[in-house]
This record gives sequence, structure tokens and C-alpha cells, in this order.
Amino acid sequence: MKVALVQMYVSPTPKQNMITAYDKIRQAKANGADLVILPEMFICPYETSNFPRFAEPEGGETYQALAAMAKETGVYLVAGSVPEQENRVVYNTSYVFRPDGMCIAKHRKVHLFDIHVKGGQHFQESETLCAGSRFTVFETPWGRIGLCICYDVRFPELTRMMALAGAKAVCVPAAFNLTTGPAHWELTFRARALDNQVYFMGCSPARDTQASYHAYGHSIVTNPWGEVVAQADEKETIVFAELDFEKEEKIRQELPLLRHRRTDVYTLYGFDNMR
Amino acid sequence: MKVALVQMYVSPTPKQNMITAYDKIRQAKANGADLVILPEMFICPYETSNFPRFAEPEGGETYQALAAMAKETGVYLVAGSVPEQENRVVYNTSYVFRPDGMCIAKHRKVHLFDIHVKGGQHFQESETLCAGSRFTVFETPWGRIGLCICYDVRFPELTRMMALAGAKAVCVPAAFNLTTGPAHWELTFRARALDNQVYFMGCSPARDTQASYHAYGHSIVTNPWGEVVAQADEKETIVFAELDFEKEEKIRQELPLLRHRRTDVYTLYGFDNMR
Repeated sequence: MKVALVQMYVSPTPKQNMITAYDKIRQAKANGADLVILPEMFICPYETSNFPRFAEPEGGETYQALAAMAKETGVYLVAGSVPEQENRVVYNTSYVFRPDGMCIAKHRKVHLFDIHVKGGQHFQESETLCAGSRFTVFETPWGRIGLCICYDVRFPELTRMMALAGAKAVCVPAAFNLTTGPAHWELTFRARALDNQVYFMGCSPARDTQASYHAYGHSIVTNPWGEVVAQADEKETIVFAELDFEKEEKIRQELPLLRHRRTDVYTLYGFDNMR
Repeated sequence: MKVALVQMYVSPTPKQNMITAYDKIRQAKANGADLVILPEMFICPYETSNFPRFAEPEGGETYQALAAMAKETGVYLVAGSVPEQENRVVYNTSYVFRPDGMCIAKHRKVHLFDIHVKGGQHFQESETLCAGSRFTVFETPWGRIGLCICYDVRFPELTRMMALAGAKAVCVPAAFNLTTGPAHWELTFRARALDNQVYFMGCSPARDTQASYHAYGHSIVTNPWGEVVAQADEKETIVFAELDFEKEEKIRQELPLLRHRRTDVYTLYGFDNMR
């Protein structure tokens, strides 16, 4: 399974961002990608005021265009995330489209990013967003894949539930910043992959120092032994990687972390989002 | 709170190891340590056949000697681990003694180390050991401290339960090897500290290439921002570190990971080992 992580610049104009995304998805496909990931909020700059402004209901114009891109290029498309409107509420939502254009999964960010580091990053997603309440996995011919968004990756419980539900890899549209990125991005993606014996893929926007939020970039793929398979710098690029599920199975046999869990000592429980 | 991690050579003779431990604890105290940690199985070389051979019941000769060392030096002593016999069963057990010599906690390794990496490490603790079934925290004047043993640290659930029970730091007598050590030791200690916003302390034996099991060494202290505070190489030494719980509190305020857990989405539950 060949994956492509589209680390694209996000302009202030949704239309322009859709053109960029379309262009990059075709480039990824031309290079053999089976599954393409877009970044968190690739549709508009990452600012709380933008989320209600650009939100659309499920099945709206952006959704339809993304479905069409998946179908035209014939890839599994983890369509980054976009603001989703339902009634009066907005979610940070990631749709997944099959190569036939069908939407097979939808993840609403479960953990909203509300932080305030003194002299560092301040952001309050809950000003304009509501949170989802399910973890998400979806099916591909290569196996089951998990999906969460950015700050969700900080919480080991969510990843564990995906792994226990059979995920062999996890996609994470994300936008870490220049405070948390250098300190925690690679560490977290390596550790989640190692602990859960899965591949992990974090797809960030390219850094735009003109924007109000400076994304860390560094889109990354880590493997079940905790190693970095591929990683970008901060500039616009596409990161490609082969996921080797035979290697994953070998690691799970040799160091059987998932089998050695003591379910008589602790219980972890949650609801998934399978349709 | 000043901690000292005693990375000592483990000889084939328990009596010699007790002499070494005593010497190092006094050295640690002379350098201002409030809490001293010994390595996993500091009493005998890490071999499954040694565990039943050197096992003693709780309150036995080794236990009494360790209590006396804590009392004489006036430190909190996380006494590495020793084989503990109860009826016909042997556990990999860590006792904690207060400066008055009283035993205030006992952790029995919950996850037994049974791995077989092709061309790498093979070990089967379950050949001679039984597993504990509780997580462990204990009280000090500086706050509540968690305790687990080596392979236990691989399982995020156990650490999370300690953190949720109020642990501000976690002690881990451990003996990673030359396969898993270089690949996973630092990564795991950094990630557990970051995810749970606690200090993490891993105390290993020094490497003895004459022994059948080659410990990685590299005794380590990591902080709640995911950084390495102090780390040894593979040789005999004592690692000292100051734990700054004000800094920990500041990190917990700025990036409130523990408060942002979605307990309505997932539930983690287990029994602790408080006396």
C-alpha cells in the first residue's frame, strides 16, 4: 500500500485550495499512490473565525467535489478536514472517499485544541467548534485504517481503541505549530506507532509565515517499530511511503504488545464510528 | 525533590549486590538525594532460572536489609525489584521503603516479558514468574509517586491509571536489552512523561557483557514536556535529577491534556494497589 501525504499551502480562498488539492492528488496518483491524505483544514486558514464562515453540511459543494476527485483519480482519499455544519453547530470533520467516490467514513475531531502556552502558542478551537464523540476506522483492500484529527493524537486512549478495533495504520490530518511541533510532533507519532504496532501518518499544511497560525509542517510516516519512515521539512511537498503490513505482522509476532495487554487489570472502552 | 538512579553492576552473588546497593544508596544520600531507585533484579543476574532460586517471601532477609538501609540513610528507597515468593509462586516485585524503614508500597510486575525477536532478543519471564494484577502509587511529602517495572512501561494504560490516581512522577526499575533499548527506551520514557505530564525515571543495571542478559543501561529521567533531563551511558554510575513539580503544574495549566481527556467517549478503569 503506497500512501501520499499532501503537504500543501493553504491560501485564504477555498476555491484556490480545492484547485491545489486536486492538482496534488493527481500528482500523487501519477506516482502510484493508493491512498492520499490532505492536511487538517486544507480548505481555509486555521483560524477559529474561519470555521463557521466556510462550514458546509455533509453532502455540500466541497464534499461533492472531493468525492469526484477520489473517483476521477481512483484513490482512497482521506480528505484532510473541513468545517462541517450540522444545524447550528460546526465540527472539524474528515471525510474519507473510496475510489468509486463513495464516502465510507467521517471523523469529527474528538479533542478540541484549547491551549495557552506562556510566550508560545494560544488557540481556542472551542470558540467556534463542537467536538465529535466517536473514534473512527474504515475499510480498504489492504486492511482496516484508523482516522483522527491533530490534537486527538495526544490522547493514547483514542489510538488504542482504533488499534483494538483492528486498525493497521492511522491517518492524522493535523496542524501542529512552532511551539508544540518541534517539541512533540515526531515523538508522539513514533510513540503511538510503537505502542500500538501500527503505521502512523501525520499530514500537515506547509508553513505559511504570512498566515496567523504557523503550521509546523514536517508531514510524517512512522512504522510499528517506532521509526520515522519519511518526513518532510516545512515547505510544500508530497511525502510518499510504502506501508509494509507483513513487517507489521512480524513485529506483532515477535513483540506481542497487543496480546500482552492485561485486560483483567484494566478495561478500556469506547464506541466506534463504523457505518 | 532530588532523585538518584543507581545504575549498578549486578554480580552473580546476592550478598555482593546488597553491599553494592548499600554503598550506592549512601553515596546518593551524601549527594542530597531524597529518593533513591535501584534497578530491576539488582539482587541477581536477570535469568529466569535465578528467580525461583533467589526468591524470598515478603519480610524476608533481603526485605529487612533494604528497610534498614532506607532507615539508616533516611531516604525514600524504591528498592529495584527482587524475586518474591508467595506460597509456590514467584513474582518480580518492587518494595518501597520510607525513611523510617516502613514498607509503604509493593508492586508486582503486571506484564511479563515474553518476547522473541528474530536475530535479536529472546526472553520468557513466564517460565518462572507469575504476574501481579494491580497498579501501584505511594505517598511522599512531595506528592504521590507511581511505580511499575520494565515491560509494564510499554502499556500506556498502566501509566495512565497511575497519572489519573494522582501520580506526579513514575519510578521504573527496568532492564531493557540491546535490541529494544536503542530502539525504544528513550522514546517510551519521553512519550509516557509527555502524554501523562509526569516525570518518568527508568533505572537500569549497568551493562555486563559477561552476563547472559545484556542490559541497555542508559538510566533516564524525562520531564512532563517530553524532554530528557538526565541519562547515563551503559557503565556503572548514579544519575541525579531535580524534579520540578511547579514546572509540571505550569505545563498542566498551559496544555491541559489530563483535563481534556474525553471520559464520555472512552472509559479506562483498573484497580490500584494502595495499602
